Amino acid sequence: MLFLNQWDMKEAMTMKETIDAIDLAYKIYESNNFQMPTRMQVIEGENTLVLMPCMTSSAIGTKLVTVFPKNTSVPTLHSLVILNSSDTGEIKAILDGSFLTGFRTGAIGGSAVRHLAKADVQSLALIGTGVQGLYQAIAVCTERSITDIYLYNRTNEKIPPFIEQLKQWIKSSVNFHTCQTVEEAIENAEIVVTATTSEKPVLPDKQELLIGKLFIGIGSFQSTMREFPDSLYKVTKQIIVDSEDAVKESGDIIMPLKHGWIDEGSIITMSQYLYKKGKRNNDGNSVVFKSTGMALFDVVTANMIYQRAVKKGLGTKLNLA
Amino acid sequence: MLFLNQWDMKEAMTMKETIDAIDLAYKIYESNNFQMPTRMQVIEGENTLVLMPCMTSSAIGTKLVTVFPKNTSVPTLHSLVILNSSDTGEIKAILDGSFLTGFRTGAIGGSAVRHLAKADVQSLALIGTGVQGLYQAIAVCTERSITDIYLYNRTNEKIPPFIEQLKQWIKSSVNFHTCQTVEEAIENAEIVVTATTSEKPVLPDKQELLIGKLFIGIGSFQSTMREFPDSLYKVTKQIIVDSEDAVKESGDIIMPLKHGWIDEGSIITMSQYLYKKGKRNNDGNSVVFKSTGMALFDVVTANMIYQRAVKKGLGTKLNLA
Repeated sequence: MLFLNQWDMKEAMTMKETIDAIDLAYKIYESNNFQMPTRMQVIEGENTLVLMPCMTSSAIGTKLVTVFPKNTSVPTLHSLVILNSSDTGEIKAILDGSFLTGFRTGAIGGSAVRHLAKADVQSLALIGTGVQGLYQAIAVCTERSITDIYLYNRTNEKIPPFIEQLKQWIKSSVNFHTCQTVEEAIENAEIVVTATTSEKPVLPDKQELLIGKLFIGIGSFQSTMREFPDSLYKVTKQIIVDSEDAVKESGDIIMPLKHGWIDEGSIITMSQYLYKKGKRNNDGNSVVFKSTGMALFDVVTANMIYQRAVKKGLGTKLNLA
Repeated sequence: MLFLNQWDMKEAMTMKETIDAIDLAYKIYESNNFQMPTRMQVIEGENTLVLMPCMTSSAIGTKLVTVFPKNTSVPTLHSLVILNSSDTGEIKAILDGSFLTGFRTGAIGGSAVRHLAKADVQSLALIGTGVQGLYQAIAVCTERSITDIYLYNRTNEKIPPFIEQLKQWIKSSVNFHTCQTVEEAIENAEIVVTATTSEKPVLPDKQELLIGKLFIGIGSFQSTMREFPDSLYKVTKQIIVDSEDAVKESGDIIMPLKHGWIDEGSIITMSQYLYKKGKRNNDGNSVVFKSTGMALFDVVTANMIYQRAVKKGLGTKLNLA
């Protein structure tokens, strides 16, 4: 049994390989050859324990996450992923769930860039410079030769340390632009990633600023959350979601459906898009990708990280008996 | 974060202390101050992943168990327990779930002996000499000065190695009796523990052999399983269960209720028995205790083991970051 902390995981697998893992997860999703029940939530007051299991033919993964929103001195989220063999049930690895979630969520954005962005895009706007934003930026830069990154964050002071962190991961030739408004950030960007937990749209409701770009929404994972403005739905023909659950979970899909800004026929899963030729001619409109994540991503990524860690001799070996 | 394997756990906590933990769990059960949803099962063919979370005011525990019934070269069950802080959600410990389950199930039997057996009992019959039987025997010997242990197992050759294992835990003055029949085993025993997964009663259906003893049923945890014969219900006035779930889960309670051998009024939980003065005058009848276990036992025991391990400097320290 192997314990893999974030340093082991960073050494075990690159972002590019993690994006490959996400693409493999889409293939499994489309094949329907997996078991992924609705996540289990145990609630005590304002605190929650969330259990997210998933069984594939290659591995069994269970993500545990505690959510303690009132934590001040320690993070609000704590997480582990347990990986079991799908042949014998034996415990193969225990992984840092927080890093895994951040990194694989970055890779979900990266996969969207790989498949949905034009080959020659050079500019990225990132709205929200938290942990999720960091991995999104790394992933975008992995898939395209980005020269300019436009950064916006509600709390402006967080941007300089964010840039310092990001510089440890990407090419030093990238130009960083700290923006005072979201308008300023997205104006010249070809890819726009939103990574906030906002309850109202963080992007401006201005069609002329939203046309002809790739939008990747990572933040809104609950029905009360929205990052995309009404106008965005007028400049896109198709919304690509990472799973069918996103349609039920995110306010960025629920609200537009409810108000008739989009119809269900214009929503397609990434697995259909990739493996069922569900692509539409985009005619210069914007492309919208929305992710809420799923346990299948965790188990496929965890298993790939585990296999590479074994090969490279990484991690701490633990014996139960 | 601490990793505790079975050796760490054995050093951290004695059986007596584990029985104390079980009694504490009954107190919490009676107070109703905990969250314990129905276990989650993920099934793929004949294999199952079971998730058993429980939140108390002192700790959050999640037991993961994989059940692969066709395993031949490795055990059919593999298990971990993850312990989180109930104050912050932080991960405190990862424990070997198989040892924890065996040891705390022993302690459930031990608690039954502590509270239900006469002070001067000296003899034990153990039906089923598997892993569960081992911890049951250890627990009974922890609570009473047992001089004679009568052993029965379907596969007789398993008894000598079982005795060798048991000798590492208990006083050397105990006399072991290897029995050819269950009748022979229970005839002279004051306490009878059944630890099999039989689908039909393992005890003889003979009232005269069943009267005036303490019966502890540990094995039957599903509706299709039975260890106790019809006659047993004629020589007892009260059946004590470890949780209300046992009434719905075990064939040893479901069948007698269905056939009217007992009525619901004669079933009482151990927590009521201990903390609500639910005791009845037994008038020389037998006392029957039936356990199917619950996640609350796991979290209370795991938390106590963790606390003692920290004090004693046991376990492997792991860092996520």
